[in-house]
Amino acid sequence: MFEKEYDVIVVGGGHAGAEAVAAAANMGSKTLLVTMNLQTIGQMSCNPAMGGIAKGQIVREIDALGGYSGIVTDRSAIQFKMLNKSKGPAMWSPRAQNDRLRFAEEWRLLLEQTPNVDFYQEMVKGLLVKNGKVTGVRTSLGIDINAKSVVLTNGTFLNGLIHIGEKQFGGGRAGEKAATGITEQLTDFGFDSGRMKTGTPPRVDGRSLDYSAMIVQPGDENPEKFSYLDTPLLKEQRDCFMTHTSAEVHDLLREGFDRSPMFNGRIKSIGPRYCPSIEDKINRFADKDSHQIFVEPEGWHTVEVYVNGFSTSLPEDVQYKALRSVKGFEKVKFFRPGYAIEYDYFPPTQLRHTLETKLIENLYFAGQINGTTGYEEAASQGLMAGINAHLKNNGKEAFVLRRDEAYIGVLIDDLITKGTEEPYRMFTSRAEYRTLLRQDNADLRLTPKSFELGLASEERLRRMEEKERKSTSFIEFFKKTSFNPDQLNPILESLDSAPVKQADKMVKVFSRPKVTMDHMLQLEGVADFVAEHELDREVLEQTEIQVKYSGYIEKEKNNADKLQRLENIKIPADFDYSKLKSLSFEAREKLQQIQPATISQASRISGVSPSDISVLLVYLGR
Amino acid sequence: MFEKEYDVIVVGGGHAGAEAVAAAANMGSKTLLVTMNLQTIGQMSCNPAMGGIAKGQIVREIDALGGYSGIVTDRSAIQFKMLNKSKGPAMWSPRAQNDRLRFAEEWRLLLEQTPNVDFYQEMVKGLLVKNGKVTGVRTSLGIDINAKSVVLTNGTFLNGLIHIGEKQFGGGRAGEKAATGITEQLTDFGFDSGRMKTGTPPRVDGRSLDYSAMIVQPGDENPEKFSYLDTPLLKEQRDCFMTHTSAEVHDLLREGFDRSPMFNGRIKSIGPRYCPSIEDKINRFADKDSHQIFVEPEGWHTVEVYVNGFSTSLPEDVQYKALRSVKGFEKVKFFRPGYAIEYDYFPPTQLRHTLETKLIENLYFAGQINGTTGYEEAASQGLMAGINAHLKNNGKEAFVLRRDEAYIGVLIDDLITKGTEEPYRMFTSRAEYRTLLRQDNADLRLTPKSFELGLASEERLRRMEEKERKSTSFIEFFKKTSFNPDQLNPILESLDSAPVKQADKMVKVFSRPKVTMDHMLQLEGVADFVAEHELDREVLEQTEIQVKYSGYIEKEKNNADKLQRLENIKIPADFDYSKLKSLSFEAREKLQQIQPATISQASRISGVSPSDISVLLVYLGR
Repeated sequence: MFEKEYDVIVVGGGHAGAEAVAAAANMGSKTLLVTMNLQTIGQMSCNPAMGGIAKGQIVREIDALGGYSGIVTDRSAIQFKMLNKSKGPAMWSPRAQNDRLRFAEEWRLLLEQTPNVDFYQEMVKGLLVKNGKVTGVRTSLGIDINAKSVVLTNGTFLNGLIHIGEKQFGGGRAGEKAATGITEQLTDFGFDSGRMKTGTPPRVDGRSLDYSAMIVQPGDENPEKFSYLDTPLLKEQRDCFMTHTSAEVHDLLREGFDRSPMFNGRIKSIGPRYCPSIEDKINRFADKDSHQIFVEPEGWHTVEVYVNGFSTSLPEDVQYKALRSVKGFEKVKFFRPGYAIEYDYFPPTQLRHTLETKLIENLYFAGQINGTTGYEEAASQGLMAGINAHLKNNGKEAFVLRRDEAYIGVLIDDLITKGTEEPYRMFTSRAEYRTLLRQDNADLRLTPKSFELGLASEERLRRMEEKERKSTSFIEFFKKTSFNPDQLNPILESLDSAPVKQADKMVKVFSRPKVTMDHMLQLEGVADFVAEHELDREVLEQTEIQVKYSGYIEKEKNNADKLQRLENIKIPADFDYSKLKSLSFEAREKLQQIQPATISQASRISGVSPSDISVLLVYLGR
Repeated sequence: MFEKEYDVIVVGGGHAGAEAVAAAANMGSKTLLVTMNLQTIGQMSCNPAMGGIAKGQIVREIDALGGYSGIVTDRSAIQFKMLNKSKGPAMWSPRAQNDRLRFAEEWRLLLEQTPNVDFYQEMVKGLLVKNGKVTGVRTSLGIDINAKSVVLTNGTFLNGLIHIGEKQFGGGRAGEKAATGITEQLTDFGFDSGRMKTGTPPRVDGRSLDYSAMIVQPGDENPEKFSYLDTPLLKEQRDCFMTHTSAEVHDLLREGFDRSPMFNGRIKSIGPRYCPSIEDKINRFADKDSHQIFVEPEGWHTVEVYVNGFSTSLPEDVQYKALRSVKGFEKVKFFRPGYAIEYDYFPPTQLRHTLETKLIENLYFAGQINGTTGYEEAASQGLMAGINAHLKNNGKEAFVLRRDEAYIGVLIDDLITKGTEEPYRMFTSRAEYRTLLRQDNADLRLTPKSFELGLASEERLRRMEEKERKSTSFIEFFKKTSFNPDQLNPILESLDSAPVKQADKMVKVFSRPKVTMDHMLQLEGVADFVAEHELDREVLEQTEIQVKYSGYIEKEKNNADKLQRLENIKIPADFDYSKLKSLSFEAREKLQQIQPATISQASRISGVSPSDISVLLVYLGR
């Protein structure tokens, strides 16, 4: 029924699986996607949104490498925001709300239009392994399908167990079956496996909400997008809304705590620290009387609404009673309650940098099976596994991104060197070179590499080269052009910035904190240059960042070098981390608990980021 | 979490459930739809098509009554055909191919936009019953939801068991969980339940097919549509294709017969006679070397293809090997194999004409749970159950359609008086008044009744009244207008129809077999009348049928009267039905087996239609 031997079989069609399929197939591998349900390819299991802080950068990196997540996001977006625009460009993070159905449909159609992709709907029960090498998969019907390599992307499906209050039942997602067989076989092969937990909030009927009691959260006035290719820009957008929990809501939730699987010991596995359930937030931040709730529409037309910030596995009657006390939710109607789900994962220290397992050759893991959380984290691992499966099958060198090249490099390095005991989510603070790893330059960083691999298209390379050429020449222009005080001073005056006394190189003026590209464009000479060379938004942004932040970038590189030299420094016994408020909360908690003997040991603790190490070093006087 | 008491709870969101929800809610009932998966509302589980012979008439009736199936079909259609246009108008049957995803999406959005509808995703485990009356449902989480009445539309989900070759596993559809609990509870209450079987063909990758080796099946040149409202007409259409099985294909299939659950006794329940599996066709029609296969696209853009005519539960390797020998399928790739599914049903003789159960008050059954097959049959039962649940709750008279009023009347009367031991499908031959029950006059037959009930909108009534007014006046025009021989004879000559000698009433000329409305329109006086009164396609069609077929309609009514008078006639013992070739194959087989003593007994046998009785009567000399 199938090719005699596929190059790559990908098990699972979520964000990780879909990107793995796309990457391997686009590089030329005969690829088979096996999924339990072909109608749920590219399903957004949790919130209907892509991107966000650090995650948006990852989507841009995926796009720069030739993955599809950015394209799919742009085509199905209903709202776009560039987060943190008021901070430095390392923090700018694109985020989109999406139409859930459209998102999945775009994924399905894109994969269908990709050459070399076959599809098959069935559950994979186990792997075919010979002499320590994977040779294919076995389905629940007992069909053996052969392949040179296999990528497992099982998400929350491996022995998935759903909890709502005191009830629990098997399932990979609400209304969907769990997958069985793979964990048992892999542990027989000697793999360590563990359980993780994640959760999702109730979905409710938008018609039952009082939006007038909430704070409107519109998209950006000039929405941008994710893909470096020619995807559509949003012309219309749908609003989100914000509201808050209250002391009353928290009290109502607390009434259910004795029936909470989180608190009565029924759920033993650890959930995502940065996507905590509402009961977790109340418990951990007992002093807080209020938490934000973001009310996100599930699509252009549907009335279904996602209650972001209210993830919970409390009994459904408790969920309901509490949510009804939230402003704007007084008459809320549930489409379905929130729930927690426990599932199997495999500590990612069992992987190589290519995401190939150490125990079984040509077997790759990507996504939640590696203990991560988040669509973007999953998608990027899928992409890298797909690329590396193809490369290895063809006797080519592995493709590994360094920590200073991409968030994807940080993600995978963190996973395989530190492992993770709780669902791993990306943050800008996890990256020690975050000023280098910006959303604006992902194409400059990664597209040439990917083109060389045979993945990114010529079109991508051409666009990236044009952007680079144009921004380089624009930077040159700022470096060598001077303007007179009478041209510059009116602008500087309007900014309360000291006037210049004589003609000065533009690059110096531009570097002043308050001066932006918009101000530069007020100068006729600059505007003329832009018009003459047809410089677009991306080129202006790139130039601005490279001119204004070149100092920071240099500094950051030096710091990084220092970090490496000074890694083996002793930490006094019984060191009190609670004093170091500039450590992240997670780092403080874990360092206090583990009390590492050296900086090096500290740096290997999951959740302790290089930035935390930097803080420690400063404190220890280095 | 819910209304204190809903008026109507509908369990299941397929064709039956969705229509039940729409009908009850539009009449003013507070209605809750409970379904295992809100993303599969309006799912086309089998072929991506609506309508067809007799079924198309049902969709038109549903639309005339104010149901949604016609609207959804029109909005998601990718091809339209009026079947049997060369036969009499009783046989004209609209049929559409649909985009599967769009179809479900349109259903979901329409229901979301319907006032009084709430949604809830969970499995219903059982009913709440008090003093012989249903009072609500209990979900798998143990939530009790109260309602005045409950409509069960469980489709193939009740203890669904999927078979592929020698494998079997629980499931309501491929990739979806089965539902449990309801059957067990109902049989405890004293209900008879049984098992039925249905099946579905493989889904394949359209890119792997050689369409040039097949016969193209385009849509109509001037596609019509289902709804009497202002739904869009297709401007573009997608082609289907036809190919055939061969002796070689049959031989390959036979090689798997010993592993077939149909033939080795594993499947005991009876499947749909008129949607047989390919192995069934080979078995029952051993003399036939070839069967048709219709290759149907699953949507506007997807490459997925439905292999209509190749339903099978043979082992997947047999399915594959055999399908590869079909012309055009030499390189076929499977998306998923075909399968059979067994599920619980409740013999519908346990129901009243309103589809309320006799055993439990205010409990209604609709769709496959009643032993029917087909989207249209299911949808129409859902509609009627929804209407009657609302009426009874409000102390109003039941709404029952007679056999001479609607196919829906025939369907329900057949079900509750004869029961069915195999999946019941509608045919024109099941209706003794089929010349009355045409697709063109469903609005005239049913919209006024439905408007009176408070279901069909004023807009529907207005459109129907205008159509009736205009066609009546056009018929009058033909009755009282004469044309001269020199106006008429050129037209008659071109048709090889005898010339007229003197001016004659148009109605007489129009009644001639070869003369159509198109010919009438060649007469300036007719064309002027049409232009002046702005008569549209529907009015022309209605007028033509009423003028040309009035004789048939009268005759049919007389026959029906005769049938009722002569019902109790004895049939000789050991009567040889095999001689009566004009009996349907099904009737011949069953009559031969059961050997009824009287015509009346014969008429109560499931599958023996009034037309068959008519044949018997003629043979017996009555």
